[in-house]
Amino acid sequence: MKNQVISEVSIIPVGTGDTGISHYIAACLEVLEGRGDLSYRLTPMGTVIEGPLDTVMEVTRQMHEIPFSKGASRVVTVIKIDDRRDKPSTMADKIESVLKQLPSVKT
Amino acid sequence: MKNQVISEVSIIPVGTGDTGISHYIAACLEVLEGRGDLSYRLTPMGTVIEGPLDTVMEVTRQMHEIPFSKGASRVVTVIKIDDRRDKPSTMADKIESVLKQLPSVKT
Amino acid sequence: MKNQVISEVSIIPVGTGDTGISHYIAACLEVLEGRGDLSYRLTPMGTVIEGPLDTVMEVTRQMHEIPFSKGASRVVTVIKIDDRRDKPSTMADKIESVLKQLPSVKT
Amino acid sequence: MKNQVISEVSIIPVGTGDTGISHYIAACLEVLEGRGDLSYRLTPMGTVIEGPLDTVMEVTRQMHEIPFSKGASRVVTVIKIDDRRDKPSTMADKIESVLKQLPSVKT
Repeated sequence: MKNQVISEVSIIPVGTGDTGISHYIAACLEVLEGRGDLSYRLTPMGTVIEGPLDTVMEVTRQMHEIPFSKGASRVVTVIKIDDRRDKPSTMADKIESVLKQLPSVKT
Repeated sequence: MKNQVISEVSIIPVGTGDTGISHYIAACLEVLEGRGDLSYRLTPMGTVIEGPLDTVMEVTRQMHEIPFSKGASRVVTVIKIDDRRDKPSTMADKIESVLKQLPSVKT
Repeated sequence: MKNQVISEVSIIPVGTGDTGISHYIAACLEVLEGRGDLSYRLTPMGTVIEGPLDTVMEVTRQMHEIPFSKGASRVVTVIKIDDRRDKPSTMADKIESVLKQLPSVKT
Repeated sequence: MKNQVISEVSIIPVGTGDTGISHYIAACLEVLEGRGDLSYRLTPMGTVIEGPLDTVMEVTRQMHEIPFSKGASRVVTVIKIDDRRDKPSTMADKIESVLKQLPSVKT
């Protein structure tokens, strides 16, 4: 089985003159729509992506490019990759492991 | 109205000898349970917290301490604070702004 | 001896209409100047601070406030805390440990 | 001229049973040694890399792999990319811009 990672990406356009950035985020997420080789989930602070590491890095690279194509001149992108190779780990598994120990947790 | 921020915290115990860290995370989340002054949400890559900045920093400080109380000797904590003061912004608002533009997004 | 942590803070004003942010950074660093209880070091991607955890969090809180006082309406602050309690660890120690193993490293 | 970015990478092996991680870091840095297409600088909290974005992502991918080749089973890698396209920006430029405004800053 191909190793899967879980990664989170936050894309922050800088100097756009507008404090709202949701239209940039929406455009970044279109990169992920309709791909069969990745799962993702939007959170209030970023996008969590699950898939093979090389694929995840490739789409992150594409997402980073989107704000420039919409007029931004500077983009800060923060990526956090969690790569566990001793056993399969999915986004659902990680949440589930915590819920088993603290069932009242809000997700 | 008191200004609210949205923050994400990831707590990573280092050198524990065990690749699994969910019991540390569950213990960290107990700090957030039952507080009336904060909202939170567990994601596969961290915990998103919404509340007044000083309160958010105070609980983050408490959460950071938890793995030490459970035996860890080194902890790396990553915090990302999104503080918007031109208009109220909640976790739900941020998701909603993106969904309005791209209704197919998974959350 | 009081436990010391090493922390890195990056402060990103959002929506300012100017891609340059060095005047915000310079103002944030003034918070650190002349304090006897902390050491710091500016890097191309953030500011590394060394000191007791509570003090580090207090100055980070102050630094985060600076861009607002200079007109920004939204600030994203990223903080990474490295807290090691099994032995004292300084900024200089961390660099030194790597250099001992790879003397050609550029710092 | 090819666009250059400045990126910071922190590689955190998880569950290794040893709080010290400098030998992993030293091995990661060997990936950067002797490359003519990149500059880098070790800081107490990560490695700052300057070069074309695709090259920076390629070496970051290689660095992330190193702890696994040395026995780690889980690695968390945090990457922060600063990509400015309205004018050339180097690690030295970024520091210099701040120093011009606050000459007493320690670097």
